[in-house]
Amino acid sequence: MPEQTRGVLLHEGKSKRLFSVLGPDGSVDTGKVVLHYKDDATAFNGIKFDVVKDKGMVTATISWHLTQLLEQQGGIRTHLIDRLSTVDHLCHHLDIIPVEVVVRNILAGSAAKRFGRKEGEVLDGPMVEFFYKSNALNDPHIAEEHALTFGWADRWELEFMKQSALKINAILKEYWTGWDLDLVDIRLEFGRSESGAILLADEISPDASRLWDKSTRRRFDKDVFRRDLGDLGDTYRELYRRIFGQSVNV
Amino acid sequence: MPEQTRGVLLHEGKSKRLFSVLGPDGSVDTGKVVLHYKDDATAFNGIKFDVVKDKGMVTATISWHLTQLLEQQGGIRTHLIDRLSTVDHLCHHLDIIPVEVVVRNILAGSAAKRFGRKEGEVLDGPMVEFFYKSNALNDPHIAEEHALTFGWADRWELEFMKQSALKINAILKEYWTGWDLDLVDIRLEFGRSESGAILLADEISPDASRLWDKSTRRRFDKDVFRRDLGDLGDTYRELYRRIFGQSVNV
Repeated sequence: MPEQTRGVLLHEGKSKRLFSVLGPDGSVDTGKVVLHYKDDATAFNGIKFDVVKDKGMVTATISWHLTQLLEQQGGIRTHLIDRLSTVDHLCHHLDIIPVEVVVRNILAGSAAKRFGRKEGEVLDGPMVEFFYKSNALNDPHIAEEHALTFGWADRWELEFMKQSALKINAILKEYWTGWDLDLVDIRLEFGRSESGAILLADEISPDASRLWDKSTRRRFDKDVFRRDLGDLGDTYRELYRRIFGQSVNV
Repeated sequence: MPEQTRGVLLHEGKSKRLFSVLGPDGSVDTGKVVLHYKDDATAFNGIKFDVVKDKGMVTATISWHLTQLLEQQGGIRTHLIDRLSTVDHLCHHLDIIPVEVVVRNILAGSAAKRFGRKEGEVLDGPMVEFFYKSNALNDPHIAEEHALTFGWADRWELEFMKQSALKINAILKEYWTGWDLDLVDIRLEFGRSESGAILLADEISPDASRLWDKSTRRRFDKDVFRRDLGDLGDTYRELYRRIFGQSVNV
């Protein structure tokens, strides 16, 4: 960090840490934060936990790569400002909207279970779902009506997030197809910047998407950890090699 | 039943039975059914069960009364054709839309629990929710997106049900205020008739609404049974007296 220094820990998340940012004169730059990717893997709202070597580096690098793709190819405005290290990103400080947006192309996980559908059912078109971001309540599924009634987001924000999510999904679906992977679903977060814009936040990574190999149906995402399908570190390192054409330690 | 006779049992529901209808010549009239109100009380998807004296008569009579009110005062089209006895209603045979509509004026029950809100929170305006009608899945909460994706209802039907539900809620809220009761929430079902119209179905009763006394907050609905707050038969008979000014057995 040439001109800006990492300040104090603001928030310890499940897989990331958030730090304040100090300007050249040592004062806090309230408009920015450092997002640090940990090697921690968690599932089921933190009940399952492990440390997975290289996970922070792989998810941070993929997220950096895909966020730039979304900005350049889709004109999506995101929180990302700069990359400070393989695991540290300088980002705009956002007021996170407590409504997570999920886009599904193929049914899997909770959606298949809740509605009694078969995992693997290919949907005619992408389906957008909203969830209330709350660890205490286990991120319950909500309709737009709840966000409006309880003041979590307004009508314009919900529509903006929905349309952005569909655009992001379309770009990433095509991207992953290039690596022979199906983008099954993706979870997105947005936040309000100081200037009032809504920016894409959080990470774009196999921690927040489901990716299935088109031929073998092998999982290249966090379900490997959730469902004990293999070694998550090996899986993420292999995904990294598939995308960047070189192994993690080269 | 002067001209039409009750035929065979078509469906045994939790609190009602559905019978076919025979015309004067003995042939089945496929456009009609008889809805018979039982004395059975169930809760938690049938796990809790009891037989409650007079329950069928009270719920059928209130439903008859309120359905007529909705038709006459609100121009709401319903499945009701005629009353055959205190517990038997002649109705249009509907293709039931598997999406239940709930309107909430005050938070209670599952809505308060799911979103970590206090039971009794008065909402600024009515909130409409949709649920997928499925005993096997425990009637999960859905967004419009799910109904569209899985073909349970189309966009026009969802909007029609939502607007009808809001109108019905407004009329009934005012009605119950006249009896010193708050309409906390109400669950509605709709179905498609042979002619293609969408009609209000099921019952409009304290089995499908929450009613709280405005001063004492005493419950006059099925929560008395669900939560063991007293005798459901006594409660329903008292509600009957409050509305009709006479006791059940007069």
